[in-house]
Amino acid sequence: MLDSTVTSRTQVVLDAFNSALAAGDTNAVKALFAADSYWRDLVSVTWNLKTVEGPEGVADMLSQQLGHTAPGNFQIQAGEVPAEENGVITCWITFETKAGRGWGLMRLKDDRIWTLLTALQELKGFEENRGKRRPMGAEHGAQKNRITWKESREAEEARLGYDTQPYTVIVGGGQGGIALGARLRQLGVPAIVLDKHDRPGDQWRSRYKSLCLHDPIWYDHLPYIKFPDNWPVFTPKDKVGDWLEMYTKVMEINYWTRSEVKSAQFDEVSGTWTVQVNRDGEQVTLRPTQLVLATGMSGKPNMPRFPGMESFKGEIQHSSQHKGPDAWTGKKVVVVGSNNSAHDICAALWEADADVTMVQRSSTHIVRSDSLMEIGLGALYSEEALANGVTTEKADMIFASLPYRIMHEFQIPLYDQMRERDAEFYAGLEKAGFELDWGDDGSGLFMKYLRRGSGYYIDVGASQLIIDGEVKLVKGQIDHFDEDAVVLADGTRLEADLVVMATGYGSMNGWAADLISQEVADKVGKVWGLGSDTTKDPGPWEGEQRNMWKPTQQENLWFHGGNLHQSRHYSLYLALQLKARLEGLDTPVYGLQQVHHLS
Amino acid sequence: MLDSTVTSRTQVVLDAFNSALAAGDTNAVKALFAADSYWRDLVSVTWNLKTVEGPEGVADMLSQQLGHTAPGNFQIQAGEVPAEENGVITCWITFETKAGRGWGLMRLKDDRIWTLLTALQELKGFEENRGKRRPMGAEHGAQKNRITWKESREAEEARLGYDTQPYTVIVGGGQGGIALGARLRQLGVPAIVLDKHDRPGDQWRSRYKSLCLHDPIWYDHLPYIKFPDNWPVFTPKDKVGDWLEMYTKVMEINYWTRSEVKSAQFDEVSGTWTVQVNRDGEQVTLRPTQLVLATGMSGKPNMPRFPGMESFKGEIQHSSQHKGPDAWTGKKVVVVGSNNSAHDICAALWEADADVTMVQRSSTHIVRSDSLMEIGLGALYSEEALANGVTTEKADMIFASLPYRIMHEFQIPLYDQMRERDAEFYAGLEKAGFELDWGDDGSGLFMKYLRRGSGYYIDVGASQLIIDGEVKLVKGQIDHFDEDAVVLADGTRLEADLVVMATGYGSMNGWAADLISQEVADKVGKVWGLGSDTTKDPGPWEGEQRNMWKPTQQENLWFHGGNLHQSRHYSLYLALQLKARLEGLDTPVYGLQQVHHLS
Repeated sequence: MLDSTVTSRTQVVLDAFNSALAAGDTNAVKALFAADSYWRDLVSVTWNLKTVEGPEGVADMLSQQLGHTAPGNFQIQAGEVPAEENGVITCWITFETKAGRGWGLMRLKDDRIWTLLTALQELKGFEENRGKRRPMGAEHGAQKNRITWKESREAEEARLGYDTQPYTVIVGGGQGGIALGARLRQLGVPAIVLDKHDRPGDQWRSRYKSLCLHDPIWYDHLPYIKFPDNWPVFTPKDKVGDWLEMYTKVMEINYWTRSEVKSAQFDEVSGTWTVQVNRDGEQVTLRPTQLVLATGMSGKPNMPRFPGMESFKGEIQHSSQHKGPDAWTGKKVVVVGSNNSAHDICAALWEADADVTMVQRSSTHIVRSDSLMEIGLGALYSEEALANGVTTEKADMIFASLPYRIMHEFQIPLYDQMRERDAEFYAGLEKAGFELDWGDDGSGLFMKYLRRGSGYYIDVGASQLIIDGEVKLVKGQIDHFDEDAVVLADGTRLEADLVVMATGYGSMNGWAADLISQEVADKVGKVWGLGSDTTKDPGPWEGEQRNMWKPTQQENLWFHGGNLHQSRHYSLYLALQLKARLEGLDTPVYGLQQVHHLS
Repeated sequence: MLDSTVTSRTQVVLDAFNSALAAGDTNAVKALFAADSYWRDLVSVTWNLKTVEGPEGVADMLSQQLGHTAPGNFQIQAGEVPAEENGVITCWITFETKAGRGWGLMRLKDDRIWTLLTALQELKGFEENRGKRRPMGAEHGAQKNRITWKESREAEEARLGYDTQPYTVIVGGGQGGIALGARLRQLGVPAIVLDKHDRPGDQWRSRYKSLCLHDPIWYDHLPYIKFPDNWPVFTPKDKVGDWLEMYTKVMEINYWTRSEVKSAQFDEVSGTWTVQVNRDGEQVTLRPTQLVLATGMSGKPNMPRFPGMESFKGEIQHSSQHKGPDAWTGKKVVVVGSNNSAHDICAALWEADADVTMVQRSSTHIVRSDSLMEIGLGALYSEEALANGVTTEKADMIFASLPYRIMHEFQIPLYDQMRERDAEFYAGLEKAGFELDWGDDGSGLFMKYLRRGSGYYIDVGASQLIIDGEVKLVKGQIDHFDEDAVVLADGTRLEADLVVMATGYGSMNGWAADLISQEVADKVGKVWGLGSDTTKDPGPWEGEQRNMWKPTQQENLWFHGGNLHQSRHYSLYLALQLKARLEGLDTPVYGLQQVHHLS
């Protein structure tokens, strides 16, 4: 319901909020927050990604930050009107801090703040040159020895990493590294993206041939250039690869292909990293101030060891090494695991007439792609959402505005709907012997993703093969390998020419162990997960994803990644943190994450 | 002024229009048009680009077309509100025909139609797969021998032009060929774009090094993917080249590089062309039904011959061959001509410390870039326009809605403003001896562009060099060349190491003469221009640009091109005409253009 009373009531809260903040009256601020309230701040007030809870949490945070970051001037966003639904007023807001300007979303219950999202959008004096601030390009007026855009770009590429040092090195040039690279470029932060592949986009091209994005296109945009509206809902991997390649080029990202980091070391005294890089055979030493690991939120492949593996006569591949089914027509393949990759690989092998058996080791959460799209994402990321005025940018903010602490409460009913809608499908899977779950608390796929980044399959067809027995299903644990078979703990022998270990990935700090040292990996601890005390996400509660896009216990080391949505949205906050440090702004971090788990 | 009366009055006219059209009552339609009225139709009613004038013109057109194309269901566009200003009501409209759906803009004076633009947007049953109609991409469900996107794309590329024939061949892969290629791809019209360069975008990259687009970025978008908002106002040529290259790739255009057409012949019996192509050394014969020349609206270079040229010891280049100033530092260069290319080349040579003389042969129209942007384009193509809700698509339609017959009346006051604003600048040029003009009727740059495609310079700095005498200016006609100099009719000797002939281009049908035959070139006649009976645009009045984007006197031969704006907007109408013919729709053309001039 839209009425002017709602606007007035919202304005009263904002006025009181602004007054209390300006007066430094923490008690008055506390009084504006509901008992069960959440203030999620993305870099604007805390110089961190941080959710504080309840009036006491707010007070604690402000007691440390108010003097430094001086948030204020909270306003209803121009052109937006607060709306009330089911007793909750929702309002788009803008605000300022000492260093920057922010955007956010506020929800009121009984005229007190229930949820508040504050997200830094730009730094004062360092606004991006976009729209009205875009560069002229041509420098009008004649001048001797003019340097053209091309000459200047070529000179920059030739010098960077040799005569001049980048402020930031990003390790990994998938969508994460590319999105961050684009933002840093735009903010004038000298950066190099390092990637081992031949071309940007090869991270996707090199995967199994039937792979398409599992998320719909509206969820997948990169910053600055959206996919055109003729693009498929689920984009094939090679097309994604082409897009990333062209994006890297036209966004003028300094992207080094065929470049592998051999080692990285932080010097506490100079505050800089020494990064040894093999650049297509050439040894280059980079000395950036900031190091970002964008090596994939999946971390390093988990490759379990079993007795007899070394004498197995067939081939054993981790799913990340599997190149697709073409070589395996007519052959026996055992796929160990039952998450996304396992299902996709099984279906592709079946399509190529391989004899495929899936080994399910533990229960798996399955949702059908169309149900997930319609029920799970449709309100935010779809043509309908766009038609309703929910742009990608707004969708990202709405998504970010739901506190992780209570997000599962919003998710559970959606998955209840899916379970009902697809009851016949799930009955078929259970009849085929497939062990299903819906997450420890029934909150489904997205919470599993945020908590552990695994444990699910978005069904695009493989489940029917299992229901029909076309892909054989065996439950159990591997005991050992024979020369020609995988043998399970119950004695089942599965003959195989190929075994694909779809056994997942470790924590991203495994990369830090490899590239830097075990000591630094342990210092920063586990990456990803919320501390939800559910399977594979041990407590205590963290409130935000561990170590992602925010300061870590290792000075000047950052983790970036996730799906395309996260690469797009959170790259902004990471980029602003790096820019603020480059420019020497005061960036006092509130609530630096403690380490409770090493991996 | 917005009021409900305006909407009602507009609705009354539309209701009457719909009733009259439905009843086939041409007299009733006539009565709705003002005495001095214009109906500009882009392919929807006339299957042509055609402007008819006054009630009689409307009646004549409808008497031929009403039965075939059945326009009707004219409505105020959803979400738009008619507005009245200075006695003119302007209204965005939608409508239908038998074959398609259209969009348009209507202006009423005294509640009668003054201008009406009707533009076909899509063909019924052949709507583009965009937005809600976009493809799924992933084909969910498992299937044996699945063909991936990449395999399918590669197979298509391997077969097209060999095992399968394109319906359309587009000669020339600059922005025109690329924009049309993208639209045809999207409409499912098999097409090949042929271009002689190594890479898409080389049309720009290969030009002189300081070149930037003279039009601002908002005017320059391609269809489907807009330039991001961090792009410069005036984009450097190499950056444009990179964009075109990536665009060609991600839009999946079948683009043959290093491919030159040797000959093309139309077979009246089969209704197809035989096109001989040298594809990077391989001789390929293509047999398309439709042939589009997108070889540049500039046509073939005009290279005048003068006595003594053959014994001149320096170098003589046409401006299109000039590669920039780098080789000419400290040398004497004479640039013949005083339009855009001449000025740009002179400035670049001066910047590289060449000794430069410009030979002005006839008067030239000069406007300063910032004045042109603010006064000439700002209302339609700028950040301000976007902020006012004038999208690129709307701007294109507003632009297209002004009848060519009276367009100069709208232009003259703009150029009067510029003349006043930059009075000091023009005084400086005249003092330096530069001969200025404002077009035969004072209507300035855009009318010159539409009428003759030449005769102007958009000043980005070279004029100041002429004012300051840094680039020397000589007026006169060339009489002959000596061994070391250009000699003018008045005896002036201009010593030169290099002479750049910035002497313009011929009519595009010169390309038809080269590629097809002189007979066909003469059959289609002059390309470009309006028949305005002004310099280089002889009458009689045509009402539309000659031969551009519409049926010509040569069956199945089309001309496409122009600046980025025209390449973007008019490629839609050309693409729809080709699609309609591919699908065998009835496309009776009203008012096929007569030929009055051969070149």
